[in-house]
Amino acid sequence: MKKGVFITIEGPEGAGKTTIIEMLMEKLKTEGYPVLSTREPGGIEIAEKIRNVILDKENKAMDARTEALLYAAARRQHLVEKVLPAIENGYIVICDRFIDSSLAYQGHARGLGIDEVYAINQFAIEKLMPDATFYFDVDPEMGLERINRDKGREINRLDLEGFEFHHKVREGYRLLCARYPNRIVEIDASQSVETVFENVAREIERIIQ
Amino acid sequence: MKKGVFITIEGPEGAGKTTIIEMLMEKLKTEGYPVLSTREPGGIEIAEKIRNVILDKENKAMDARTEALLYAAARRQHLVEKVLPAIENGYIVICDRFIDSSLAYQGHARGLGIDEVYAINQFAIEKLMPDATFYFDVDPEMGLERINRDKGREINRLDLEGFEFHHKVREGYRLLCARYPNRIVEIDASQSVETVFENVAREIERIIQ
Repeated sequence: MKKGVFITIEGPEGAGKTTIIEMLMEKLKTEGYPVLSTREPGGIEIAEKIRNVILDKENKAMDARTEALLYAAARRQHLVEKVLPAIENGYIVICDRFIDSSLAYQGHARGLGIDEVYAINQFAIEKLMPDATFYFDVDPEMGLERINRDKGREINRLDLEGFEFHHKVREGYRLLCARYPNRIVEIDASQSVETVFENVAREIERIIQ
Repeated sequence: MKKGVFITIEGPEGAGKTTIIEMLMEKLKTEGYPVLSTREPGGIEIAEKIRNVILDKENKAMDARTEALLYAAARRQHLVEKVLPAIENGYIVICDRFIDSSLAYQGHARGLGIDEVYAINQFAIEKLMPDATFYFDVDPEMGLERINRDKGREINRLDLEGFEFHHKVREGYRLLCARYPNRIVEIDASQSVETVFENVAREIERIIQ
């Protein structure tokens, strides 16, 4: 039986990830592919409980390393319960954020070190790196402006960080693009939705054929 | 200012750790030392919340790697909020279980690998290994018999594992004794409480002088 494909979408909030994932899902479904879109914690009860600890605004004393370990724990459980079974059943799985988020946010922007955060995530995901990752690059100012326009969207702890933090996140993602040139495709997300969608869709065609 | 001392006590439930720690506390306090005894999660709110996720009997689908990451996360927070400040203030800190529990239980007995579990715990504790560790060695049958006699004690998920698991835990601890001969002191915990206490107290005298 042919195994599925594991695709992750990365980049800051406001980069348009959600919109593009919806368009990709529709396209791939229409073409008859079995597809699943997800994001951590993805409705997995244990991962949801872990996520609640991470995002609880009461937990002000949360150490950055504790946070990174909790993200890795939630990632593990979501992977085992939801992503892996789908891939084993031949699905194309599109996941909104995965290991690279931890590397860019905790590893680089929070200064824990990309290699160190990579190590705990390797423990969490074992050998399951994505087949392909799309990094949606956008200027932090533009990303935050888009978030502010979208009034329905819930603001989380990371959105509240300053510009300097978001610039460091971008720097982190760029380091990852340089480190994983075969896996990560950088997409200029300041372009129109149509152009971004076409670029990503074309790459995915290439991967699944 | 002289820094404190970090001592950990390891071994299965029923090995007498709690009793000996109480006796040590009393002795060291009488001698005028500033002492703190603790165990994870140690009343640290974030660590308590993580512990609740780990021990929740509803969470039957908990993957062993998720569990190991959660223990490391709770350890980190307890260390940062409680253990480190005490050590920096010159206290003798006696901690009931620490990194070696994860190495013996998750690393060896659950088969995740001692080196792999060590890696995520190094991320959690950075360079703060205990100054000394006492491993209370006891035959699993004797340990479980002692637990069953102590009706007031709460039974947790690990107590419910079979004998085979507890024998593997013991094997794991013995591997750790061989790996860290300078840090870990093996104590024959089948001896009388008085003898065990004298052995541990004598070693601690040596360390803090």
